[in-house]
Amino acid sequence: MIDQKLAELGFTIDNPPEPIGNYEAAVISGNMLYISGQLPLSDGKLVYQGRVGSDLSISEGYLAAELAAVNVLAQIKKKLGTFDRLVKIVRVDGHISSSDDFIEQPKVLDGASDLFKKVLGDKSGHARTVFGHPRLPKNAAIELVVIAEIR
Amino acid sequence: MIDQKLAELGFTIDNPPEPIGNYEAAVISGNMLYISGQLPLSDGKLVYQGRVGSDLSISEGYLAAELAAVNVLAQIKKKLGTFDRLVKIVRVDGHISSSDDFIEQPKVLDGASDLFKKVLGDKSGHARTVFGHPRLPKNAAIELVVIAEIR
Amino acid sequence: MIDQKLAELGFTIDNPPEPIGNYEAAVISGNMLYISGQLPLSDGKLVYQGRVGSDLSISEGYLAAELAAVNVLAQIKKKLGTFDRLVKIVRVDGHISSSDDFIEQPKVLDGASDLFKKVLGDKSGHARTVFGHPRLPKNAAIELVVIAEIR
Repeated sequence: MIDQKLAELGFTIDNPPEPIGNYEAAVISGNMLYISGQLPLSDGKLVYQGRVGSDLSISEGYLAAELAAVNVLAQIKKKLGTFDRLVKIVRVDGHISSSDDFIEQPKVLDGASDLFKKVLGDKSGHARTVFGHPRLPKNAAIELVVIAEIR
Repeated sequence: MIDQKLAELGFTIDNPPEPIGNYEAAVISGNMLYISGQLPLSDGKLVYQGRVGSDLSISEGYLAAELAAVNVLAQIKKKLGTFDRLVKIVRVDGHISSSDDFIEQPKVLDGASDLFKKVLGDKSGHARTVFGHPRLPKNAAIELVVIAEIR
Repeated sequence: MIDQKLAELGFTIDNPPEPIGNYEAAVISGNMLYISGQLPLSDGKLVYQGRVGSDLSISEGYLAAELAAVNVLAQIKKKLGTFDRLVKIVRVDGHISSSDDFIEQPKVLDGASDLFKKVLGDKSGHARTVFGHPRLPKNAAIELVVIAEIR
């Protein structure tokens, strides 16, 4: 069902990004799933690079947030094997690479919140915070950090 | 009791800021309450804007942190209905809008930690981290991210 | 065992940094241990200051991340009394003070992930995210924020 909704939106989640180093893509502790920060990658390629507000428009930033959210779902599916074990998204932190005077980060992070709502419905309601950074690792446009509740 | 202490300090918590988008102001997962990032808003108006160290003094930043902490308490009250269900503040992340060479962010975040101590007493003891950012969403002076334990 | 491995690497964990203010160095909530952000301090002195990419090389940043990770372990030992109660490191957030165009933050944070792996072995596998900031509190090169699972 969730996979199907993603496919209808043009996304596949078969190949989530692998961690490069002594850490894990996702870690379970009790009923909580902690997912490593996800970038706007597709097929291993960083699709959205640079700062929103100068290199990228708000609309492009929105798409970057959406793509990072897809990668979060890919990590959840890979770790749990099935979305049936997902109770809900609990917390989303959105870190946006931003030009010096850019203050519309919430509109960018909506790309992630809207994707979760479209695909997960009632399981999508999360607390969130959005931040601006002058530069992110690998020059990514966004990093998305998610905690989910599982059964 | 907690409401009364806040009133004595001149704060009301009747109208916590509403989320604007597909997310929640606060989410419960098990015994944990995750609260969306709170800004130094009062009656829907952003009271403290700009960078501490240039636009704002440390004292003004302290007051901004205090006000954001009041909004955290407002969200807790709204979500739980009563502070009786609050066991303790567990974690506080303070993100401070900072001028380029400003490194006294801990003194700013003390505004939040001190408010929690004054109002919550033994329930206030939290782990915390403080960060500097060159610019925050809506040009807010501070964003405060809190996790609390509840019963 | 863990103390011994740390000693072999030349680290002692007898004097973890004290919080300065109305907060705690570490807080337990259920099975989770939340540790306040740790800096690259040794004997109360900030060893690594400034921005990686300009003031500090990647190698120096790696050592800064390693030292901050040692301080995380020192806080765990102080709070729990023994590493026997540590189940695993769950989440690591690495905030790196970075020059304007520096994008190799993951190589810096490897200093923390590698130290945890060397010392904790199977208990070390964590989800992680790495960030760049133009300036951190006290002009620290890195701030490390860790959540651990305990018994």
